[in-house]
Amino acid sequence: MRSIVDITDLSKEEIQELIDTALDMIEHPAKYARACEGKKLATLFFEPSTRTRMSFEAAMYELGGHVLTMSDPATSSVSKGETVGDTVRVVSNYADIIAMRHPKEGAAYAAIRKSTVPVINAGDGGHCHPTQTTADLLTIYREKGRFDGLTVGMCGDLKNGRTVHSLVNALARYDNVKFVFISPEELRMPRYVIENALASGNAVCEEVSSLEDNIGKLDILYMTRIQRERFDSPEEYERLKDSYVLDARKMALAKPDCRVLHPLPRVNEISVEVDDDPRAVYFEQTRNGKYMRMALMLKLLEEARKDPAKWETHSPAAAKDLKCRNPRCICAFENGIEHVFTEDPKNPGHFLCAYCETPAE
Amino acid sequence: MRSIVDITDLSKEEIQELIDTALDMIEHPAKYARACEGKKLATLFFEPSTRTRMSFEAAMYELGGHVLTMSDPATSSVSKGETVGDTVRVVSNYADIIAMRHPKEGAAYAAIRKSTVPVINAGDGGHCHPTQTTADLLTIYREKGRFDGLTVGMCGDLKNGRTVHSLVNALARYDNVKFVFISPEELRMPRYVIENALASGNAVCEEVSSLEDNIGKLDILYMTRIQRERFDSPEEYERLKDSYVLDARKMALAKPDCRVLHPLPRVNEISVEVDDDPRAVYFEQTRNGKYMRMALMLKLLEEARKDPAKWETHSPAAAKDLKCRNPRCICAFENGIEHVFTEDPKNPGHFLCAYCETPAE
Amino acid sequence: MRSIVDITDLSKEEIQELIDTALDMIEHPAKYARACEGKKLATLFFEPSTRTRMSFEAAMYELGGHVLTMSDPATSSVSKGETVGDTVRVVSNYADIIAMRHPKEGAAYAAIRKSTVPVINAGDGGHCHPTQTTADLLTIYREKGRFDGLTVGMCGDLKNGRTVHSLVNALARYDNVKFVFISPEELRMPRYVIENALASGNAVCEEVSSLEDNIGKLDILYMTRIQRERFDSPEEYERLKDSYVLDARKMALAKPDCRVLHPLPRVNEISVEVDDDPRAVYFEQTRNGKYMRMALMLKLLEEARKDPAKWETHSPAAAKDLKCRNPRCICAFENGIEHVFTEDPKNPGHFLCAYCETPAE
Repeated sequence: MRSIVDITDLSKEEIQELIDTALDMIEHPAKYARACEGKKLATLFFEPSTRTRMSFEAAMYELGGHVLTMSDPATSSVSKGETVGDTVRVVSNYADIIAMRHPKEGAAYAAIRKSTVPVINAGDGGHCHPTQTTADLLTIYREKGRFDGLTVGMCGDLKNGRTVHSLVNALARYDNVKFVFISPEELRMPRYVIENALASGNAVCEEVSSLEDNIGKLDILYMTRIQRERFDSPEEYERLKDSYVLDARKMALAKPDCRVLHPLPRVNEISVEVDDDPRAVYFEQTRNGKYMRMALMLKLLEEARKDPAKWETHSPAAAKDLKCRNPRCICAFENGIEHVFTEDPKNPGHFLCAYCETPAE
Repeated sequence: MRSIVDITDLSKEEIQELIDTALDMIEHPAKYARACEGKKLATLFFEPSTRTRMSFEAAMYELGGHVLTMSDPATSSVSKGETVGDTVRVVSNYADIIAMRHPKEGAAYAAIRKSTVPVINAGDGGHCHPTQTTADLLTIYREKGRFDGLTVGMCGDLKNGRTVHSLVNALARYDNVKFVFISPEELRMPRYVIENALASGNAVCEEVSSLEDNIGKLDILYMTRIQRERFDSPEEYERLKDSYVLDARKMALAKPDCRVLHPLPRVNEISVEVDDDPRAVYFEQTRNGKYMRMALMLKLLEEARKDPAKWETHSPAAAKDLKCRNPRCICAFENGIEHVFTEDPKNPGHFLCAYCETPAE
Repeated sequence: MRSIVDITDLSKEEIQELIDTALDMIEHPAKYARACEGKKLATLFFEPSTRTRMSFEAAMYELGGHVLTMSDPATSSVSKGETVGDTVRVVSNYADIIAMRHPKEGAAYAAIRKSTVPVINAGDGGHCHPTQTTADLLTIYREKGRFDGLTVGMCGDLKNGRTVHSLVNALARYDNVKFVFISPEELRMPRYVIENALASGNAVCEEVSSLEDNIGKLDILYMTRIQRERFDSPEEYERLKDSYVLDARKMALAKPDCRVLHPLPRVNEISVEVDDDPRAVYFEQTRNGKYMRMALMLKLLEEARKDPAKWETHSPAAAKDLKCRNPRCICAFENGIEHVFTEDPKNPGHFLCAYCETPAE
């Protein structure tokens, strides 16, 4: 049995396998219409995300299964002080697979440690949101037929955007990907994301501040939202905001086969006039997300059928006296949770919190 | 592909077709038990309405389909500033048909403009709520076998009741319908509703203030709630309220074959003692609503199958500089929404907001 | 047609029948996978209880049926002042069976009086919660193979715990059950519960204060939560709380075949370290709850099929001028509800509120 916390839990080969399954589902939906007959998905959403929840639920219905929904944190046993681990262990008795969203980093791992059915992380705070990345990947693949050799621009708030970090990690595994990171100074892509990408040996990274000057060279433009409150000053926001809004004028500068993605919801960072441009594929991207969730659930249920044993996660590190100090980690939120650490593969002798992957002090 | 904003989007012939289908469903439920197999209804409720939502969901289940639910506005992407158009365009990727409730007038049209699947308006503010009217119509038809020649009383708050306005519009298309509007002075049926009814050339309208004096001549009595806050003064409310409460004593004055309808929920405008009167059909009315929703969904899905092209709604009016000034319209609520106008069919040269149908200034 | 308010609505023989069905379901799930095809369960939760709701919903899906959910009181017509009776009468038109949770005592009976489909009480305030007890009973039966002759400890807040009261009532019907009630002085089992148990003539009751001194003789240990606010003073709580926490050290004193149950959610009254003890069966207990709910729904739907007539509940008592004075009763909450009384079977000539079973003054 296997669960998914992060996009990197899936190998390059597994991503391709999911894409191939998704493409087959798009081509032959009837073939899959009873693939999960009698199976139940539980969507455990400890914070609201209608779009992601509905995508998972539509995916399970298109596979012929059932859905159990918990969409409102206030109505859950959490309000009575129950741990994520207990909730998930109970829900394991009701459902065959769980998609979980939680506001705390590392909550997905806390769930997986106790679950007796596969768990898919549908977002754990600012930590990971792997199925968004699978949607992005299928969209790029359907539009371009490949990942190798693409020039991928990412624009907006690159500092706080979990989505773009995850997509960089996923794409850096392919050959000759050129990243163009387009953002204001204060919202640049974090150093460690760039270093990870470069460490793969396949990628080139460029950091720029102008969308207008760089849009012309992109195969893919991944837009994200810039929030006013992320800026150092309101004046700075007012001065810069329009230069990161994608409109028809800027689209005129883009290549004829450029494709525009956005994780949605958008507010005003893409003008409505762009929606009808055939290069805008952000609505199609949500449809692709549904198919990748179908492929992923099918794969995990199949693996669980072959090997129903509980997923053995990381072995606890020897260093018993370590504590996670990340205030946004589930460890800081739940009394009595067992602090677990794993050795940092990139930094032997150093340890990471097994939940949120923050280095131990 | 077609969507439904208002009851008048359905012709008299189509209403009869829906009634005939509903009657067949009541008679032969098994025939329809797989009619929507593999189809998904999304109930997008931007404001709560458990009754209406459950009715749609039960209807889809009785047709063998699936349901995706968004029942809480606070958990939606709306709280992140997303437009109705974007939400619906995304949900079009998850569902085959959408039933939408929204607190703003014109929101249904905003949804329909962007949706790639049929949308049924399940209430857009004080504007329209067509499936309630289909429930009313099936109830009258099942009880009376006809619409022509009926004397239909409507009692209570006729000024603010979207339900009664819509029912008047629907019934005025039949022959020799006599309306008796029973209300206090300050809550009379709006002038334009009466004029519309009279304009049909088939209807007669009478405005009265006493339920007791008029109940004896009614074939149908449609009760609605009177809210204290609608009155000019609390004294006026106290003085009048009991005369608009239907109780056993007043029922004794009604004809033996009179039928009492109410859109529900009722508070105290109908005494509980009336529930057991065989002439009270308001609970049966909710069951009828389910069957009409089944018939309507089946019809729209069938039309969408035959003609999957996006619904081409009104062509934008020439007058590009018009703005809708209705503060309750979705146009006043969403930034960047395109203001669209159509020429008023009853008033050539004048324009109506395509969303909320308020005349342009 | 029959509905279930309390565990004692089911005879000893019927409990055994449900257990036998549940065991068969566990053994042969495929046999039941379409048993409720085309049937709809409505989960009407006027207060949140994700665990119980999901258990009912999973149960209906495993029987091949559909589910209509109302999980948030704020989104219901209740907020518009509708009575439970009206809500349930409407929902009877949408669903084939109803599971209802409500914060007011007696609300289940208020629902059953108006429903035209079977209603299962999923908790009405502090009054009854029969399906929790069916989960407890199946767990004991699966672990022990019998109810007769068991020594059953109940530990924690026995005064306020609806769950333990109900389990005592259910077990007292078997032979030679020995109850050991383990609680602090201020949270002792109510006198009337003990008297009921003794009145059966089969049971022995012992009241003690130490878990540690008594755990060694138990076949079953039923743990419940102790809330700080239930104590007379914070000092008393601090002094006593640890003695009612079950940990590995106390488990070392328990018999090798003792079994630990808990209605969940637990906060810290059972240490996480106990979870891996093979004698801890509280997570398995939630799975058993699902099977008993399946068995119960199947039974009630089958009875309704054979006898669809509305359930004739208690005949109203002659004493027309009685009023229920329980402030937590649904009678105190709903305007215009009919106060109904039944003669107390244990106290002829005295009357009980038919809703909450509080004696009339």
